[in-house]
Amino acid sequence: MNKSRIYFDHAATTPLLPEVREYIYEISKSIFGNPSSTHAEGRIAKSFVEEHRKIIATILGCSTSELYFTAGGTESNNLILKSAVHNLGVKKIISTKIEHSCNIECFEWLKRNCQTEINYVAVNQQGQIDLNALEELLIKSTSKTLVSLMHVNNELGTILNLDPIGKLCKHYNALFHSDTVQGIGFYQYDLKSNALDFMSGSAHKFYAPKGVGFVYINQQNKIEPLIHGGSQERNMRAGTENILGIGAMSRALSWCHEQFEERMSHLQFIKNYMLTSLQQNFVNLEFNTPIENSSAKILNVQFPFFEGSELLPLILDIEGLSISGGSACNSGAEKASHVISAIRPDDKGKAIRFSFAYSNTKEEVDKAIEILLKSLKGKI
Amino acid sequence: MNKSRIYFDHAATTPLLPEVREYIYEISKSIFGNPSSTHAEGRIAKSFVEEHRKIIATILGCSTSELYFTAGGTESNNLILKSAVHNLGVKKIISTKIEHSCNIECFEWLKRNCQTEINYVAVNQQGQIDLNALEELLIKSTSKTLVSLMHVNNELGTILNLDPIGKLCKHYNALFHSDTVQGIGFYQYDLKSNALDFMSGSAHKFYAPKGVGFVYINQQNKIEPLIHGGSQERNMRAGTENILGIGAMSRALSWCHEQFEERMSHLQFIKNYMLTSLQQNFVNLEFNTPIENSSAKILNVQFPFFEGSELLPLILDIEGLSISGGSACNSGAEKASHVISAIRPDDKGKAIRFSFAYSNTKEEVDKAIEILLKSLKGKI
Repeated sequence: MNKSRIYFDHAATTPLLPEVREYIYEISKSIFGNPSSTHAEGRIAKSFVEEHRKIIATILGCSTSELYFTAGGTESNNLILKSAVHNLGVKKIISTKIEHSCNIECFEWLKRNCQTEINYVAVNQQGQIDLNALEELLIKSTSKTLVSLMHVNNELGTILNLDPIGKLCKHYNALFHSDTVQGIGFYQYDLKSNALDFMSGSAHKFYAPKGVGFVYINQQNKIEPLIHGGSQERNMRAGTENILGIGAMSRALSWCHEQFEERMSHLQFIKNYMLTSLQQNFVNLEFNTPIENSSAKILNVQFPFFEGSELLPLILDIEGLSISGGSACNSGAEKASHVISAIRPDDKGKAIRFSFAYSNTKEEVDKAIEILLKSLKGKI
Repeated sequence: MNKSRIYFDHAATTPLLPEVREYIYEISKSIFGNPSSTHAEGRIAKSFVEEHRKIIATILGCSTSELYFTAGGTESNNLILKSAVHNLGVKKIISTKIEHSCNIECFEWLKRNCQTEINYVAVNQQGQIDLNALEELLIKSTSKTLVSLMHVNNELGTILNLDPIGKLCKHYNALFHSDTVQGIGFYQYDLKSNALDFMSGSAHKFYAPKGVGFVYINQQNKIEPLIHGGSQERNMRAGTENILGIGAMSRALSWCHEQFEERMSHLQFIKNYMLTSLQQNFVNLEFNTPIENSSAKILNVQFPFFEGSELLPLILDIEGLSISGGSACNSGAEKASHVISAIRPDDKGKAIRFSFAYSNTKEEVDKAIEILLKSLKGKI
């Protein structure tokens, strides 16, 4: 990592924790068997996977039998959404237009291929849904329904209160899936006491490697795998287990759990400092992130339109500040955010997401403000 | 790894190459961006993925646009088989009963869920198919057909000659998929000059980590993804790229390619030495691996039936010799091999697969023979 650059894009992905790097290095020397083999090397690998499943399940407050390892959040959400339709009789999905693209693409695929009805509940400018509107849709629903609402919005940082949504779903006999990819490691879940049927996690959002994740499936829901083959993951996900990834994910999540209070208070401090520094230096900004009830790591700022404002991410990048202003197309150019388009359909300004990690400092915020002042001078 | 043990199960999985371990450690410090981000860290990660795609494509003799990264061989084969039915109009699959379980499970799933007709061609005791029988099935086929035949059988080591099969498929306008998971790194492919439509690879079979693989899709075949979401892998496989896994896989395959001749001759030497040592020490063995036309790393031996012969893998494991005698069930017990049942339906003996790596030695073979002599004394 180039130390002179400022990386404020931790909601996109995070660098490895140094201790996770060391852990991968060490375990790669001793754990290499195939967990499906019956000999000593295989049994060691199998025990390793199960030990780490236990660690993660304990942190999340669920049973080990409800936790399945996958190749990441996208696969986890695909597994849940498609299997709910294929195996659990779901005919209707209720969601919003500000979900992560992997969920939206699954909804559209299910609509085209399985005649699944998709209802989108409106969201306000803070990314919150209207519970009454959700309840109305549930009342009207005459077929088996799944409600799919992400816990922490990856662009806005908005946190939904899962409990009342879960209660509504239970009351109306609907299944409840939450994409919790941005919440895992940054929120203390207790799955025993809430009404979630499905949730998903992705290791690279919490300082572990890309290419590994998990899915929580409440044990009442019996679904079939998306990927068929061997009997790995208790017949729910075939393919030799990603041993190093699973160990690294568990180690990183344990670290997040152990450092929870101080890390979250540091993140909140950095975010607040960025917010007040922006307010002190610019008069005409708006905040897409709700100040209350939002992720401590995400601050999404709406900069006013100016000639060339769509190039702001590029200008900041050249100055050494990495943020998100959308996601890359195949061409390398940026796509406009479907989330910002949904909450600000007529706004021509530019939304910039700053997202922080434990490693970010007050000095980096000061330098980021300097870069913003320089880049926006005479423009807004 | 416990150095006093002998690991002869490299067809199940391999330990990391030491230089691959160092490489993962080093790149994890410098490459961490999300390839979908447009800033410097994202572009570095994107270039890294594309650079390694180029390296692997060059080794395989295909275009980078025909190579897609996945989470492993099982996902690759699922993607090919299901998409061929969903997107390419395939109504019939011709295969054998000695394919890897991930392919067989896909066939059965497609039969149940998509009314795909599955025809199994008979194989002889060496695991070879009868080309005339295949041609007859192709002649009779009135609907779009996919032929799916693994290149190197993971249990027997039998190598199919892909060229005449590819030509037959082309002649009868059938698609041709080969599960090449046991071939990659151990066979020199040149995809420009053969008639394959699809092939699959899994990094952990050639000294790279578990949880990453690839699929080759000939550019004439336009299929849809199995996992929907972002536009990664040119819209063919959503999910943030497994950067460390992809880099490690490319590094390991490059090493396999550079050391090809000497490594294969060492493997062949070890296998031959094991074979002749077995012949010298035991009179009543049969070989499930054909001596000609088989993988240099696999030797599958049929031990005669004796009281408790099904426990032979366990006895050898206790003595410090890791081999495969089937695969583990969820219970930890072993399932009988569907491959051995197919070629020896009435044999009550025990098949043991020995599979070797560059790191195995003549001394290990000597010690393995000692263990076998001790374990089988008075029994066969």
